[in-house]
Amino acid sequence: MKNLEYIDLKYKPKQWDVVAKFFVEPNDISLKKACEHIAAESSIGTWTDIATMNPRIARKLKPKVFSIDHKTNEVKIAYPMELFEPGNMPQIYSAIAGNIFGMSAVKYLRLQDIGFPKKILDSFKGPKFGIKGVRKLLRVKKRPLIGTIVKPKVGLRPKQHANVAYDSWLGGLDIVKDDENLASMSFNSFEKRIPATLRKRDRAERETGEKKMYMANVTAPVSEMLKRAKLVKENGGEYVMIDILTCGWSALQELRDADLGMVIHAHRAGHAALTKIPVHGISMLTIAKTARLIGVDQIHIGAIFGKMFEKEKEVKMTGEEIESQIITPKKGQHLLEQKWFNVPPVFAVCSGGLYPGRVPPLIDVMGNNIIIQAGGGTHGHPQGTYSGAKAMRQAVEASLQGIKLEEYADLHLELKQALDRWGK
Amino acid sequence: MKNLEYIDLKYKPKQWDVVAKFFVEPNDISLKKACEHIAAESSIGTWTDIATMNPRIARKLKPKVFSIDHKTNEVKIAYPMELFEPGNMPQIYSAIAGNIFGMSAVKYLRLQDIGFPKKILDSFKGPKFGIKGVRKLLRVKKRPLIGTIVKPKVGLRPKQHANVAYDSWLGGLDIVKDDENLASMSFNSFEKRIPATLRKRDRAERETGEKKMYMANVTAPVSEMLKRAKLVKENGGEYVMIDILTCGWSALQELRDADLGMVIHAHRAGHAALTKIPVHGISMLTIAKTARLIGVDQIHIGAIFGKMFEKEKEVKMTGEEIESQIITPKKGQHLLEQKWFNVPPVFAVCSGGLYPGRVPPLIDVMGNNIIIQAGGGTHGHPQGTYSGAKAMRQAVEASLQGIKLEEYADLHLELKQALDRWGK
Repeated sequence: MKNLEYIDLKYKPKQWDVVAKFFVEPNDISLKKACEHIAAESSIGTWTDIATMNPRIARKLKPKVFSIDHKTNEVKIAYPMELFEPGNMPQIYSAIAGNIFGMSAVKYLRLQDIGFPKKILDSFKGPKFGIKGVRKLLRVKKRPLIGTIVKPKVGLRPKQHANVAYDSWLGGLDIVKDDENLASMSFNSFEKRIPATLRKRDRAERETGEKKMYMANVTAPVSEMLKRAKLVKENGGEYVMIDILTCGWSALQELRDADLGMVIHAHRAGHAALTKIPVHGISMLTIAKTARLIGVDQIHIGAIFGKMFEKEKEVKMTGEEIESQIITPKKGQHLLEQKWFNVPPVFAVCSGGLYPGRVPPLIDVMGNNIIIQAGGGTHGHPQGTYSGAKAMRQAVEASLQGIKLEEYADLHLELKQALDRWGK
Repeated sequence: MKNLEYIDLKYKPKQWDVVAKFFVEPNDISLKKACEHIAAESSIGTWTDIATMNPRIARKLKPKVFSIDHKTNEVKIAYPMELFEPGNMPQIYSAIAGNIFGMSAVKYLRLQDIGFPKKILDSFKGPKFGIKGVRKLLRVKKRPLIGTIVKPKVGLRPKQHANVAYDSWLGGLDIVKDDENLASMSFNSFEKRIPATLRKRDRAERETGEKKMYMANVTAPVSEMLKRAKLVKENGGEYVMIDILTCGWSALQELRDADLGMVIHAHRAGHAALTKIPVHGISMLTIAKTARLIGVDQIHIGAIFGKMFEKEKEVKMTGEEIESQIITPKKGQHLLEQKWFNVPPVFAVCSGGLYPGRVPPLIDVMGNNIIIQAGGGTHGHPQGTYSGAKAMRQAVEASLQGIKLEEYADLHLELKQALDRWGK
């Protein structure tokens, strides 16, 4: 490695380079030396000089560490496109987010962002629906979409599950989602739950005159996942939900490539094992970008005001990243430039500990292009699910009209009851 | 949640419970309270009491926090089987290693171990070959298997790749593996590399009279992965390698379920984003157990003396876990009991910065049932790959005969040259 010299602070990334930004805490070596190790391990290096190396390879495939900030320990590396297989996300992660975390050369290491060039973008299918397609399906032009998760997370039988979903839709919610813990269980098989719930959806659509969606959790080994997705389609469903991290990139690509014509909702169970420690792992921004690129239509990114740990700045930045076409870094905001070219924007899903009182500040920060999900905040309403759903819808309507919730609650009983229970 | 009371320190786990051990660093609440949140989020709770809960569900599906160590912050939770879908590893992870990491109730959280009951074990295929099957294929009864990774990691053309592999086999190595960064690249397509390399393998077998193996990296989106695995088989290959974490559990299950009759080698690129911080994420032990259960035949677990961060205690414990039939916890060793029943033991792969001088201490600690891989430690030999392979084989032979390397090197030039270059 010592003869390869990966650091080139004068280098300007080419438009076809893959660029990564890392936080690096070296382990008893200099930051510069640690950067050399990181660049080497993701490309053509190993820990010792080898006889099988040649100048052609070094010239063509050597990454460039082109920015080192000794104050923040943040560094940027540009990798030649040829180090990656277009259309193969597992390979891209194995290279750029693989062995490097385990090297003893670094104490902590965090992949903060990846900038993808057009050739990589073009090699993935990308979202089929995105924000525009989902809004068209739901016939909701501007307001945030509102959803719930059937609760308790697991335990309801298929009919009970369908009834809770029905009450939620009838109360005014657009979307009902399976909990991420719920797949096909002894007490609630997928084969029974899907038709039962979708029949209730049809009824809710007839009774409300609104479009209603059911996000069926197809998280499973790939063949079973695709079988389940097809069952949803056969029963008239428009949506599947997949846990993108516990399934993995390879399965997610497969689901997208199957091109079943259904919206893909990305849950992110387990993400915080990777994302929570600020100095180590992989940022949620990176995970969300990757999911958008592969082709999910909506993805959980945090709730800011809920039970999850993420704070406003991070959630907002991730939200902007997945719903914009061009990202330009500014001081303290956004890390790498990203032109998204033909990859459509996708919905940020805010979920986890939300209730009516938290709707206005959430919309204030995140804007209208979000899906607001409240599980406990719907079914925990003192009068039950139907009233809870009404209260959530009322909170969104009040926000859009710029009316304070307390004021709106004067004429909206369900909202008043929710505010009484959980506060503002 | 407050009405559910998940803590029951008198509870004795049933043999059909799933048991998990966590390290928990609460975030401004008591350890007990944090445990309640963890148990709730993986089962039937949410952050507020809900109308849709009922006593049948609470009685049947409530996990029990049955052990809390206030000195070490380690806790154990027993979950009823019904919370999990047998045979669906993504669901099991979404439940037991999902949202919990992201709750603001915990500052840090580490899943240290999962104890799987027989019903879960029986629901996965498990390893087809395992240690016994691989040894039979290779006709190597007792000694550690010796392998290399073709280096540089990427950049060689298919013929060059095949020649490096050939030199390695001829020098005495059993196994040659693709680098994890190498999939199907512009300069080295999978379709050209596989036949070229397997032809050289045949030649090496004829010339040495030994069985030789080539581990082809099939890491890719699932359809492509299976297509590539079949190409390997058509060309007479017996092995595939998959990056289990960047592909994901869903794809790994699919590869195993395809039952192609090939040995599955599990690389673990990216694991340390999850495993490296001692107080957070998921332990390598847990990942290795999961991989064995799904059915890999060999898995990377660290090198102790190499360039990766893991130390002796952890690597040894993981090694014992995957090559034993019954695991009994002892003070400071092993965390949870695990009876493996019919799931065969699998090979621990030690790789990353190894060279001949590090072979004897590695075998001392890990025993003979390991695969020792040296990439740089083979191709970095002063006389090149062939001599490097000879030196590695000589180091293993010396260890098995209980002869010191320096002494053995008197009559083995290649070993001597390796010791001169890298020391002992």
